[in-house]
Amino acid sequence: MLTASLIAKKRDGNELSDDEIQFLIDGFCKGTVADYQMSAFAMAVCLRGMSQAETASLTQVMWRSGQSAQRQSDVPRVDKHSTGGLGDKISIVLAPLLATCDVHVPMISGRGLGLTGGTLDKLESIPGFRTNFDLDDAERLLTATRCYIISAGPDIAPADRRLYALRDVTGTVESVPLITASILSKKLSASLDALVMDVKVGSGAFMKTKTQAETLARSLIDVGRAAGLPTQALLTDMDQPLGEAIGNAIEINEAVEVLQGGGPNDVAELTIELSAMALVAVRDSTSLDEARALLRQKLASGEAFQAFETMVAAQGGWWTGPLSLAQEFDIFPKQSGFVQEIDCRAIGEAIVALGGGRQRAGDAIDHSVGIRLFASVGGAVDTNTPIMRVYATSERRSEYVDRLVQAIRVSSSPTSTRPLVLARVE
Amino acid sequence: MLTASLIAKKRDGNELSDDEIQFLIDGFCKGTVADYQMSAFAMAVCLRGMSQAETASLTQVMWRSGQSAQRQSDVPRVDKHSTGGLGDKISIVLAPLLATCDVHVPMISGRGLGLTGGTLDKLESIPGFRTNFDLDDAERLLTATRCYIISAGPDIAPADRRLYALRDVTGTVESVPLITASILSKKLSASLDALVMDVKVGSGAFMKTKTQAETLARSLIDVGRAAGLPTQALLTDMDQPLGEAIGNAIEINEAVEVLQGGGPNDVAELTIELSAMALVAVRDSTSLDEARALLRQKLASGEAFQAFETMVAAQGGWWTGPLSLAQEFDIFPKQSGFVQEIDCRAIGEAIVALGGGRQRAGDAIDHSVGIRLFASVGGAVDTNTPIMRVYATSERRSEYVDRLVQAIRVSSSPTSTRPLVLARVE
Repeated sequence: MLTASLIAKKRDGNELSDDEIQFLIDGFCKGTVADYQMSAFAMAVCLRGMSQAETASLTQVMWRSGQSAQRQSDVPRVDKHSTGGLGDKISIVLAPLLATCDVHVPMISGRGLGLTGGTLDKLESIPGFRTNFDLDDAERLLTATRCYIISAGPDIAPADRRLYALRDVTGTVESVPLITASILSKKLSASLDALVMDVKVGSGAFMKTKTQAETLARSLIDVGRAAGLPTQALLTDMDQPLGEAIGNAIEINEAVEVLQGGGPNDVAELTIELSAMALVAVRDSTSLDEARALLRQKLASGEAFQAFETMVAAQGGWWTGPLSLAQEFDIFPKQSGFVQEIDCRAIGEAIVALGGGRQRAGDAIDHSVGIRLFASVGGAVDTNTPIMRVYATSERRSEYVDRLVQAIRVSSSPTSTRPLVLARVE
Repeated sequence: MLTASLIAKKRDGNELSDDEIQFLIDGFCKGTVADYQMSAFAMAVCLRGMSQAETASLTQVMWRSGQSAQRQSDVPRVDKHSTGGLGDKISIVLAPLLATCDVHVPMISGRGLGLTGGTLDKLESIPGFRTNFDLDDAERLLTATRCYIISAGPDIAPADRRLYALRDVTGTVESVPLITASILSKKLSASLDALVMDVKVGSGAFMKTKTQAETLARSLIDVGRAAGLPTQALLTDMDQPLGEAIGNAIEINEAVEVLQGGGPNDVAELTIELSAMALVAVRDSTSLDEARALLRQKLASGEAFQAFETMVAAQGGWWTGPLSLAQEFDIFPKQSGFVQEIDCRAIGEAIVALGGGRQRAGDAIDHSVGIRLFASVGGAVDTNTPIMRVYATSERRSEYVDRLVQAIRVSSSPTSTRPLVLARVE
């Protein structure tokens, strides 16, 4: 097979065979297909798409470029994955919460790049917390603690790691088949029995419209199932941040509030919903309502928080109470009224600019930077009450005050609140 | 500017500004835009296209990545370029022929890759012939001989050289804007006053349909004129080879026959037509008919052949009569009748397989390999008269006999001959 001919075949909109996709990905891993060939191929896929069969084949070849977890017990293994949104700390609550319900949660997670934070970066706000375990060591963690949240090491889908790095710098991130293969190749490596996807929709998400999000959800479900992994999805709103806290340490603190039975209602409710879907997927005899009730009780009783402490300790960290944040500074709205719209992009950019996120892969992060948002769409605000609290070093934060005030559009006309869950795709 | 964002802009079908195109090409030359970024960009251009303004900008930036010839006199400078076809030896006749008509012909030409041979490879069949001159030395040649045919050295459009090498291995050759910029960036470096394009159409050409060929011709004319280079084009048939000779040394021999007033009629007539267009473009007072008559006389008188001998000598070669070819072997048709169709691709592949062309850039070429074709579409053939003569080493040529016989489809029904010139685009 000739690499240039296979690229041209996709460029012309034709379907590649399993063997042809394997030839490209294996060659990419071995170095016989060059980076400049793979990036041209990725662009052709962005513009020409892939059939479900091609996407399934790509996913499986990328998964098999690495190892899979060797399960040590029959305990059902579940996981949740989000396509990423501002303030999304669900994973940090969900993994220990589900661990209290007789399932294992082997979670392979990612770092933040661009506007939305990464679960691993948030967890590393906790002193001593480690995320680099190989799959064998992680399996031992799981036996002891029932959940882990680790990074994808070199043993997990290395083809995805290389391809993602290339896509990031060649304008080829935005592609449903490539996103599907990237997410599922890693999730399949964890040898799961069920996966729940949280596909975010809106200005603060990768998928701007419900139609786009549905297409991605459908692709993840179909390809997951074709690879033997039962997958379901919720489409959830990302036209405003999730919860109040946005940043790294500040999101851990909020996650802990939820784990202790408190915290913002949207974070708790979405965590319960996604967790209930995962539980029911591996327990035929439990209804969604029963699962929700059980999960609520695990949060209220403190068991979920205990499981979090166990997980943190097993991964080398120590939890001694809320993490300290940078110096705080309140921002007030310019007018009283109702919040019409929140510009997630502007808030995300401010966090990155203040040092709380990455412009480039490998950039250092200041975990103490963050924002607490006291406003949500449809809510009332007045000029005497702070609309947000910025945690940042004093020299830099004032630069962003104007932009942050403008990120919350206020007017005198009342407007309705936004529903969080937009659709369920099964 | 962020390279990935510019690539994404083109991926989404938006128009890039002059500055953005310059940023990409300058960065590519300097190494700050990586090969894998440029190949993804090239694929986005293949699938999204470019406006005329973008193509003009790309052409000019690629041209200015190198030097331009510093003209030493006011003598008008003309050139002809073909998009490539089987048996196309027009340049070898045209350059010395026009040199006899008080114009300069500074021709920067290419090598063969794939099915169609390259003018430089054909010329290198002549003992001692050199093609690597820098633009200053080439200008001195021109003063002495009025024409040259040289390769694009490192001083000529280096951005094109790098981009072409990348496109060749990433399935991104087939793109009207990229082809336009590649051809014209080199032609502009020769500081021409007029350019005539021979855009080939058919199974043996890059452009399979007249519509595609017209699009390319239009693009070349518009972008050439935008850069100050008056450009015109003929669309000519490439559903059968041009002339009888196909190969390297064998095509030089045929070109010399034409330069001496003989040779196949199609080669002579197309050379005269393209040359006349070039002449009239720089001489307002001459009509096309007058130009044709003058050119015919230059061929008949031996002046054109003398100019060829002068050019060969100036470029280090010596012409001592027809070049010797490999051992010959006649092929007969399986049935008598009329030629319906000639498979240019099959003939081109046979030449490459017999060692007369390149599979890969840098492959050595056996200049003595070739084919003389005694058939043309609409012509009568019979089983007692050879339909072609193969020149190749005896061990290999017999493998290709069956394929070559099948390349000429013969049936008993008469069919019309094919017109050579399909359209004139101005």
